[in-house]
Amino acid sequence: MYVILVYDMGEKRVTKMLKLCRKYLHWIQNSVFEGEITEVRLQELFLEAKVFMVPEEDSVIVFRSRHERWLEKQIVGVERMPTENFL
Amino acid sequence: MYVILVYDMGEKRVTKMLKLCRKYLHWIQNSVFEGEITEVRLQELFLEAKVFMVPEEDSVIVFRSRHERWLEKQIVGVERMPTENFL
Repeated sequence: MYVILVYDMGEKRVTKMLKLCRKYLHWIQNSVFEGEITEVRLQELFLEAKVFMVPEEDSVIVFRSRHERWLEKQIVGVERMPTENFL
Repeated sequence: MYVILVYDMGEKRVTKMLKLCRKYLHWIQNSVFEGEITEVRLQELFLEAKVFMVPEEDSVIVFRSRHERWLEKQIVGVERMPTENFL
């Protein structure tokens, strides 16, 4: 399946979350990732995230789509490149 | 159609973009909005955004889906409430 993942974490946990998401998905902007992933791998990501997440403060939203083609992506302005994101 | 909109703007333009997106969509997290919108209204949003956007610096990504039901949303951690976002 294809997912879009957005997170809003406390400052101290942002870098950890960024690194974790990169293991599983493609970074596209700020705190936004996308990509093909299996349900099992997504659950692994959640499990790893829950180790350091503060559930009362942090928020992760995942949009699942059966197929990438059901979503059309449009970029206005600059397209962020993974190399920009050097954290 | 149903869209997810994420933006990454220069600090000086964040508040403007937040206010603009609120006119058209529902805020769900940080710089993430979602909602039902027509193509015409979305183009209006873009036109208004382009007035203050700096295209070499700012980035807006829109995911369009024909139907909301083609996307399944899951929230892990806290669900942000619109009232939290008092800007």
